[in-house]
Amino acid sequence: MGRLTARRKVIRVDLATGSTSRSETAAVEEPLELRVDDAVLTVTMRTPGHDVELAHGLLRSEGVISDPDDVIAARYCTDTETLNVLQVQLRTTAKTLPVSAQRSLASYGGCGLCGKSSIDAVTGSAAFTRQAIVSEPATTFDVQRVAELPQLLRAGQPVFDRTGGTHAAGLFGRSGDAIVIREDIGRHNAVDKVTGWALMNRQATDETILMVSSRASFEIVQKAAMAGIPVLACVSAPSSLAIDAAAEFGMTLVAFVRGTRMTVCTHPERLGLTFGA
Amino acid sequence: MGRLTARRKVIRVDLATGSTSRSETAAVEEPLELRVDDAVLTVTMRTPGHDVELAHGLLRSEGVISDPDDVIAARYCTDTETLNVLQVQLRTTAKTLPVSAQRSLASYGGCGLCGKSSIDAVTGSAAFTRQAIVSEPATTFDVQRVAELPQLLRAGQPVFDRTGGTHAAGLFGRSGDAIVIREDIGRHNAVDKVTGWALMNRQATDETILMVSSRASFEIVQKAAMAGIPVLACVSAPSSLAIDAAAEFGMTLVAFVRGTRMTVCTHPERLGLTFGA
Repeated sequence: MGRLTARRKVIRVDLATGSTSRSETAAVEEPLELRVDDAVLTVTMRTPGHDVELAHGLLRSEGVISDPDDVIAARYCTDTETLNVLQVQLRTTAKTLPVSAQRSLASYGGCGLCGKSSIDAVTGSAAFTRQAIVSEPATTFDVQRVAELPQLLRAGQPVFDRTGGTHAAGLFGRSGDAIVIREDIGRHNAVDKVTGWALMNRQATDETILMVSSRASFEIVQKAAMAGIPVLACVSAPSSLAIDAAAEFGMTLVAFVRGTRMTVCTHPERLGLTFGA
Repeated sequence: MGRLTARRKVIRVDLATGSTSRSETAAVEEPLELRVDDAVLTVTMRTPGHDVELAHGLLRSEGVISDPDDVIAARYCTDTETLNVLQVQLRTTAKTLPVSAQRSLASYGGCGLCGKSSIDAVTGSAAFTRQAIVSEPATTFDVQRVAELPQLLRAGQPVFDRTGGTHAAGLFGRSGDAIVIREDIGRHNAVDKVTGWALMNRQATDETILMVSSRASFEIVQKAAMAGIPVLACVSAPSSLAIDAAAEFGMTLVAFVRGTRMTVCTHPERLGLTFGA
């Protein structure tokens, strides 16, 4: 597993049977410093690997890039022995964007801050406008397929198998086919690696579902929306703002996908359902 | 539950029995903008409530404050209708600190970034040096008490009961008595609310355990260390860097606390245990 996992000495305690020393496998967590055109944009704690995808996904989420050609080069900083500093060079025409991204990452700014202003910040961005999710669904998804996604996602988590310590995000087609699955100790990073992969590979997302192993918060909904993904499914709970944002973005949000059950929070028409009276 | 939860209309789908429309309760997520001496320090997505504690905890984690008197005033911005902008005024002598905090929040800076540099950034801070955890443990904790903590934490989670959507952090005494428990959609926020409360109430932490409902990442270990808490317990997995940081900080890290079992990752001497050969 290379740099994805690491062995550490631990003591396993069982109150019934006693204690044993042994070596266990943990998911690796290391900082990644992302530099855009020589300025530090952010540092994120992540599991190493797929860092270029992570950078693409993060920049896509923030509206800095929306086309793979927006990135001229992405390479590790060579004046360090670690692979933890990634330098991204943007196309000249995109050069004015990092400032807004920096603002977006650090602060939404302005008084009167509320959930609505967070939503407006996304819907008002040029990138979102370009690839806004259409709330009139051209495509219907099958709830039976959605119910199978947690199991399909789980099958693509080798690091979790060994550590129990990673989140996962997967992009799936309408028939439940896995397009790409990524793991990371951070749930946001796992999503960024998926949407970054999709951008780099010019993967059409308008008939896909993003399945995440975690809860759905505003930021996860934002990342899916900026990637033009019409359906977001999660195994756990949604926040109030995740629901409100998905409703506004025209996204179908499905929470608590467990066994034969799920909770459809927004835009049920894409699953052939309607809110009752 | 006031602003902590919100009702939203959803459709519950059961592939076996069909679909029903109903109203469900979600944990509220809203942005909190934290301003220090009129400059925006950060925006965090959090569950409203205990915001002043959250601010104290966050500033304590970043080494900006280490005494309740470091904060002269903390009040909501009045030129907004939301309670989502909190203005903190620091004592004059602490005024040079926010710059380093801003750097710390936004970036660790410098090339050669690795886990070691993250750890060094914490151990090198003046606040950490002042209240460093002594690795020679003056106090032994009982593993039986540790095993009971998840249940005690769970009993203090009214928002989770209603939403399934919040994390929790709790500070417990040696005998397993709950000193303070806080919930939040963000696991870092829950810890900040606990350590902030402890600072505001001048709660001694040198014989306490912090129990969290989540995994243990570097940042959770960092927050516990900056609050001088000697034992961190979590229900789920630790990351490699969480283990390395706890080892370096002199902190006892206990992971996978479930039923009668747990995994002691660092400084087992505080639990009366030793690593075997």
